Amino acid sequence: MEIIKKYQDIFCSEFRSLKFLKNPPELYEPIDYALSAGGKRIRPVLTVMICDFFGNNYQDAINPAIAIEIFHNFTLVHDDIMDDAPIRRGKPTVYKKYNSNTAILSGDTMFAKAYEFVTFTREDKLPAVLKVFTKTAMEVCEGQQYDMNFESEKVVSLAEYLLMIQLKTAVLMGASLKIGAILGGASEEQANLIFEFGEEVGMVFQLQDDLLDTFGDETTFGKRVGGDILDCKKTYLYVNAMEKLQGAKRDELLEVYHDLNMDHQVKIAKVQELFREAGVIDDCKILMHKHHVKSMDALDKINLKPEYKQVLSDFAESLLVRDF
Amino acid sequence: MEIIKKYQDIFCSEFRSLKFLKNPPELYEPIDYALSAGGKRIRPVLTVMICDFFGNNYQDAINPAIAIEIFHNFTLVHDDIMDDAPIRRGKPTVYKKYNSNTAILSGDTMFAKAYEFVTFTREDKLPAVLKVFTKTAMEVCEGQQYDMNFESEKVVSLAEYLLMIQLKTAVLMGASLKIGAILGGASEEQANLIFEFGEEVGMVFQLQDDLLDTFGDETTFGKRVGGDILDCKKTYLYVNAMEKLQGAKRDELLEVYHDLNMDHQVKIAKVQELFREAGVIDDCKILMHKHHVKSMDALDKINLKPEYKQVLSDFAESLLVRDF
Repeated sequence: MEIIKKYQDIFCSEFRSLKFLKNPPELYEPIDYALSAGGKRIRPVLTVMICDFFGNNYQDAINPAIAIEIFHNFTLVHDDIMDDAPIRRGKPTVYKKYNSNTAILSGDTMFAKAYEFVTFTREDKLPAVLKVFTKTAMEVCEGQQYDMNFESEKVVSLAEYLLMIQLKTAVLMGASLKIGAILGGASEEQANLIFEFGEEVGMVFQLQDDLLDTFGDETTFGKRVGGDILDCKKTYLYVNAMEKLQGAKRDELLEVYHDLNMDHQVKIAKVQELFREAGVIDDCKILMHKHHVKSMDALDKINLKPEYKQVLSDFAESLLVRDF
Repeated sequence: MEIIKKYQDIFCSEFRSLKFLKNPPELYEPIDYALSAGGKRIRPVLTVMICDFFGNNYQDAINPAIAIEIFHNFTLVHDDIMDDAPIRRGKPTVYKKYNSNTAILSGDTMFAKAYEFVTFTREDKLPAVLKVFTKTAMEVCEGQQYDMNFESEKVVSLAEYLLMIQLKTAVLMGASLKIGAILGGASEEQANLIFEFGEEVGMVFQLQDDLLDTFGDETTFGKRVGGDILDCKKTYLYVNAMEKLQGAKRDELLEVYHDLNMDHQVKIAKVQELFREAGVIDDCKILMHKHHVKSMDALDKINLKPEYKQVLSDFAESLLVRDF
């Protein structure tokens, strides 16, 4: 994926050159901290790349891409308060490093700052970009709310789960691509197709994330395996297992999954075993494949040079088998 | 102020017709609750009125005015978490009625919703409106941060205090008017003058608020008198008294103001007495008058029909003497 690496270098060098520190420091230092923590910057890189694919004008996409990256990090800052999460990318979360009030207000300021970068969009494209950005922001909030609702629900249907990850994760991937396409001069139809591609790819991404969190290799994944289980997260694996297991096995999963006193390693091993018995790994891969096919269907209808479509196709495929 | 009443009726009837409830209800019910709580809606009413004064086209201002009102209420929802405030407009705050996480996420969604209404601005005015709106949003966050910083500071300078209320309160008043002027087709120079007018009026508004909170009549003011004192707020009165009192009196104020165990009524009476001894009421009125004069200087340079300028002048004057 050398070509993606090229756009990653372009975007990251622009992003690193930004100065977030100003007065009052109590507000902007946490913002600088949150935005310097790294991450793959995959969403804004896609924005910049797609803009270049459609219009050969990636410069136009830099500011909106920065907006997307700041927005994404804002949601992480606030989600970490709501989820009481201590660690993000190997470092204390803003909420833990500072405090809850700081994380709320610095997060709000990041949201406003994201819009500041939206305002730097060239004027003829601004209304369209602003609409996509704002619709997405609201949907991401809705997704987070469904995720929070799941905390107090022991049974979540597959449809509910899929709606949640669509809103919380997939639409932002779709929007990142769509905004790039708009800036590259794509037609509305083409921009919607690239959104669809991105959304399906986002679904694959999240399903694989669920899988890696429970069955991944800690050294390559870079996160503690079993985190979702210990947080009683209603992942695809749990939802699927609860639909497939019956009788005593289902009762056991229900009990073990919500047992907060069980030894962590014992709990993770027990849940992994029940998941395996339910056959969740195969089901998850089948579902990922279904979404992958949908992404390829959308890609088929997109009018880009074959070598560009190949990049997108390779990218989609890489998410299907990633172990990081 | 019959004419303001007219625009208030226009705006409030539009605002009441909005439907904020949708799925998930856990997210949107708190939003509906926050936005139905009433309030004077003074900011959006100014937007609509000024737009009509400049361009005789108030309809163009309705959606941006709704954006301003939603944004203002979003800041209240988040501020109430940070300030641990139980009551707002006589009802439990969102944070107390629901919980902190709900108030964070519903607030975030309100911020996005505010931008949704900005996107409904007519396209030729959208870039300018979006810029003012976003700049203001960031400044309001900065103001709230300064206010939070003051909590842990026993001595705050007048300059720091004035910067805080300018950012937290006055710029939004200025921006509400400026956005209305932009939509009414005012020149940039005229729009900036109306911003200046609004900002100075906003300073007067906040100073009078500080005064009423400590020396107001509870029945007309509608809020518990002495709230700022019990919250150890660094108001103008406190800042001024700390600058003017000397020796034992100053030490006494410092001690009493930060004594959290003193009987509430005794504390309020004691602080009021020290404030009076320092002569804060006269000083506050002198400062309000200074800002009022500045607002009138800006108004002088504004090219509007004399009868419209009279409305603005009467409005500014009413804030100087309000007891509600």
